Amino acid sequence: MSKVLQKIRSPKDLRELSRTELRQLSAEIRSLLIQTVSENGGHLASNLGAVELTIALHYVFPSLSDRIVWDVGHQSYTHKILTGRRESISTIRREGGLSGFPNRAESPYDPFTVGHASTSISAALGLAQGKRLAGEPGNVVAVIGDGALTGGMAYEGLNNAGRFPGNLIVVLNDNTMSISENVGSIAGYLASIRTKPGYLRAKSHVERTLDHLPVVGEPLHRGISRAKSMVKHMMYKGTLFEDMGFFYYGPFDGHNIDKLIEVFENTRSIPHPILIHVMTEKGKGYSFAEQSPDAFHGVSPFDVETGETPAAADSFSSVFGSCLCELAEKDSRICAVTAAMELGTGLSGFAQKFPDRFFDVGIAEEHAVTFSAGLAISGQRPVCAVYSTFLQRSYDQILHDAVLQNTHLVLAVDRAGIVGEDGETHQGIFDAAFLNTIPNVTVFSPVYYDDLRADLKKAIYECDGVAVVRYPRGRQLFRPHDYLPSQSLYHWGGEGKAAGTVLVTYGRLFSFTRRACELLRERGIPASVLRLDPVLPITAEAVKAISFAKDIFFFEEGTEQGGVGEHFATLLYRSGWHGNFHLKGITGFVKHAPMLKTLQKLGLDEYGMAEFVGSECKLWQRKND
Amino acid sequence: MSKVLQKIRSPKDLRELSRTELRQLSAEIRSLLIQTVSENGGHLASNLGAVELTIALHYVFPSLSDRIVWDVGHQSYTHKILTGRRESISTIRREGGLSGFPNRAESPYDPFTVGHASTSISAALGLAQGKRLAGEPGNVVAVIGDGALTGGMAYEGLNNAGRFPGNLIVVLNDNTMSISENVGSIAGYLASIRTKPGYLRAKSHVERTLDHLPVVGEPLHRGISRAKSMVKHMMYKGTLFEDMGFFYYGPFDGHNIDKLIEVFENTRSIPHPILIHVMTEKGKGYSFAEQSPDAFHGVSPFDVETGETPAAADSFSSVFGSCLCELAEKDSRICAVTAAMELGTGLSGFAQKFPDRFFDVGIAEEHAVTFSAGLAISGQRPVCAVYSTFLQRSYDQILHDAVLQNTHLVLAVDRAGIVGEDGETHQGIFDAAFLNTIPNVTVFSPVYYDDLRADLKKAIYECDGVAVVRYPRGRQLFRPHDYLPSQSLYHWGGEGKAAGTVLVTYGRLFSFTRRACELLRERGIPASVLRLDPVLPITAEAVKAISFAKDIFFFEEGTEQGGVGEHFATLLYRSGWHGNFHLKGITGFVKHAPMLKTLQKLGLDEYGMAEFVGSECKLWQRKND
Repeated sequence: MSKVLQKIRSPKDLRELSRTELRQLSAEIRSLLIQTVSENGGHLASNLGAVELTIALHYVFPSLSDRIVWDVGHQSYTHKILTGRRESISTIRREGGLSGFPNRAESPYDPFTVGHASTSISAALGLAQGKRLAGEPGNVVAVIGDGALTGGMAYEGLNNAGRFPGNLIVVLNDNTMSISENVGSIAGYLASIRTKPGYLRAKSHVERTLDHLPVVGEPLHRGISRAKSMVKHMMYKGTLFEDMGFFYYGPFDGHNIDKLIEVFENTRSIPHPILIHVMTEKGKGYSFAEQSPDAFHGVSPFDVETGETPAAADSFSSVFGSCLCELAEKDSRICAVTAAMELGTGLSGFAQKFPDRFFDVGIAEEHAVTFSAGLAISGQRPVCAVYSTFLQRSYDQILHDAVLQNTHLVLAVDRAGIVGEDGETHQGIFDAAFLNTIPNVTVFSPVYYDDLRADLKKAIYECDGVAVVRYPRGRQLFRPHDYLPSQSLYHWGGEGKAAGTVLVTYGRLFSFTRRACELLRERGIPASVLRLDPVLPITAEAVKAISFAKDIFFFEEGTEQGGVGEHFATLLYRSGWHGNFHLKGITGFVKHAPMLKTLQKLGLDEYGMAEFVGSECKLWQRKND
Repeated sequence: MSKVLQKIRSPKDLRELSRTELRQLSAEIRSLLIQTVSENGGHLASNLGAVELTIALHYVFPSLSDRIVWDVGHQSYTHKILTGRRESISTIRREGGLSGFPNRAESPYDPFTVGHASTSISAALGLAQGKRLAGEPGNVVAVIGDGALTGGMAYEGLNNAGRFPGNLIVVLNDNTMSISENVGSIAGYLASIRTKPGYLRAKSHVERTLDHLPVVGEPLHRGISRAKSMVKHMMYKGTLFEDMGFFYYGPFDGHNIDKLIEVFENTRSIPHPILIHVMTEKGKGYSFAEQSPDAFHGVSPFDVETGETPAAADSFSSVFGSCLCELAEKDSRICAVTAAMELGTGLSGFAQKFPDRFFDVGIAEEHAVTFSAGLAISGQRPVCAVYSTFLQRSYDQILHDAVLQNTHLVLAVDRAGIVGEDGETHQGIFDAAFLNTIPNVTVFSPVYYDDLRADLKKAIYECDGVAVVRYPRGRQLFRPHDYLPSQSLYHWGGEGKAAGTVLVTYGRLFSFTRRACELLRERGIPASVLRLDPVLPITAEAVKAISFAKDIFFFEEGTEQGGVGEHFATLLYRSGWHGNFHLKGITGFVKHAPMLKTLQKLGLDEYGMAEFVGSECKLWQRKND
């Protein structure tokens, strides 16, 4: 088992293998991928689709002098296996183990850290131009899926790459899927060019013929050039990629290693930007994933034999989805907008029930928000569902297209807070902070499902302007039996008032804060907890509610610098409060590890919080002694 | 004079005019535009280019049932003149007067507020889909320039629009320019299709012929459809826009009103997304603007007779440009990247001297940052120059592509702070706040040219990671003779220490803060001023330097909520300080008015500051009595 794979210590070793062995290698890698993802969870279908492609790329392009940039990076497991990380692949997405995405800090074979879509062409063009300026030889290859091609950045990259002669190769890994089905005209367009397999051959033939016409002197040369391009345009329709300045080759079978190696060898020295169109099958080689590539896009650990993934439990996403359906049943103005995350954001039911009012715009978060603003202005009630980390793409659109002109739309921000195994490129720890910099935004942060339902209704029916409902990945945490949902200020443990210690928080952390209060009481430190929802704006009431406190502890599952806590502190002090403000949020980026483990490490579980309060209070007492 | 124009109270009145009168109207509007912009400053060249186009649009599309969305909006003056704002056009860009951009709050004829580029297709698609869902008739027209078409959002919009039958019309206003010359493959591509004027005619002819083939039953129909599209593809190359799902018509002469009216009339009822390609001349009808469209893109008041604009004085932009040239002379790794703002950011000299290391990427701020990150990783020293307001587009790229993977690049952020007449869509009042939410960013904010030069060097040579140098539009303000530049902490007036009142600020506001201190002293309130540079990170030293103070006043030319002041306050209090923190920054959005006037209104000039300090101190004394 894994006989061939064991020979591969670095990509160079691929050159030692026969073509038969290369095919054997693909099979061995596929087994390893299925095994690994079934145990660790992760991106399966996209990785299975890119095995031969990755082998062929590393076979042809020596990947330290050449550079391979993976778009999104969820198809890079084979790349990791081939570049010295075979033995640690079992640690992928585990605490302290390999990242689920390419990462510069992890390996010299990863030239660009990634996690968000559509960045590869821009990054690769930068690397390529840097190489050129430094006088270094070598190609830079960007591998981008047809899904990521729906993002505007990909187009900006293509538009800029087309004019530089040289060393950039874009490999379009076309599996006819985004994460679920691909959408938009570009998808249809790719389908149309896929049906022209003779394209490259015919084209080469014409070009060869024309290239052999004798050229004498400049004027004749120009005449021939003109004739050439006329003939070209008459003979066959140019592709969009040619319109953008690329030489286009394809489509090719992305599971045929021999063919891929041949194409890469033939094109690598052409002094012109090249686009190679490769057809792959998402989930290739694992029948369950072939049948349901969207279900096996990103998965939890599953049973290899049966393909059974853990039954989909309730989650904030599913509660959001069903609640929105209920509301939409009664209100025909409610529309749902998502950026390629129909499944992930729980909107599949909505899409089925209200196809007319459901808009999956592809991986295009900028468009999603501005399009929603347009819907809002024309009298609809758009709810735009985006993951927290991807909403970063829409900062300007939220500010300039939605808030500035006071449109009433709802942003449903999923995966807010720590996301766990996807790691530092995917943590939802910036949304509250960047939304705090935009005027007039209302931000709800439900703790439990009941809060989410109530907040969604408030956001749609009781707010003006832009209202955000942000909620974490996965399920609600332990809920105290005496919790009262959907109150904007929930102050628990008022009897601790005399002691003057209040823990303030919002969202999921409330569960831990509440427990921390209990722990503190057990240790003789009476304290109460204030939960904010909405988080923003912070009302005078919220400030007043705890103005009695001597010590206020603010806990935030988000960035400390520039976060909500700092805003809250400033309002407290500006109101004339003179106590001690203590803040515990997140500093810097947060690596992958299970969510609870991560919160624990950050000191944001109940024990961490209690300890923080205990130690800071002592400090304060010292100061005031 | 203006005989025809005086008849136009609303777009409906256009219908009453003969074609000769419509042409006369264009001439009258041109005079008015030249007159107005020569007095008020503003966007001249793009407005002159769009006169006939605007008349024809309003002639054909009743613009309250139909909607016209202007991309960027700097070509919308004629639209304003025709939609009931003729008499107030002399107030454009003046305090209390019309905005220089379309604005929902200003007129029902402006369906979407705008100022940033490439949003129109997304917005128009939202409006169109909203109309459809509401069962309302009417077209939505997006007018977008070839420059704005270089932005990824435009592509996301096109990709999504192509699949909806119906009421969306995109008018491509192609003047072969962005703000200066247009760049990228899409520019070359447009040039290639411009050379096919017979396109529409030939196409219609083929389609007509095919449409008249008899259709009997479904199978035959399908056969003919197939044959049709084959013939189409054989007859002529499809355009990129057809690839994106649009029917493409053009190119047409954008100054021929008769032709434009005919085209709009013929296409408005086609139940399919339409793209109409119109050729216009930037600056049309004013010889000086025709000759130098970039110089007359956005102008200060000028002399109509001579075309003389005020001599270009020194500005932060020009100082930045020449300083970067000096550094690049000695260091071949320095590259400059700009997003269609070569002139505006002062990089023309660099572009001429170092064409190889100069990258104008078009209106593509996302690409600009990620491309720069790629350059940085490959060993170059990229300096990416972007206006503050447009940098909002790059929030995710700064965070995910540059900072997260610790690339060393410099962002030169021009037009930081109040920009004046361009108004609320263009104010640079959010950059410090949103950069504050991203870990590990160093932000410099020079007060004077000397600071800028020193900061730029520090950013390139003394910083790791992402370093930002942000500076205001225009010239440096009054500089005290005893000012010491390029010190990271500059504490002036330490003799006021005993009084315990410190004014803290950064950037341009220092000039006012310093004067405010002097005013306060005259009134018997001794105070000192601390200027931060870098602004971020805030060092323990900075906090310590003023920990003696009883009252700290933080003045910020940027958003108060989520701004640097709040971060500073939190650090102060967390360090154990127990004084009074007072904050004066900007709340909400800021309308157009001259920069100094705006600062005055915001209470951020010396008198406003002194008054604020005076009144707050009294308040504090009352509290402590």
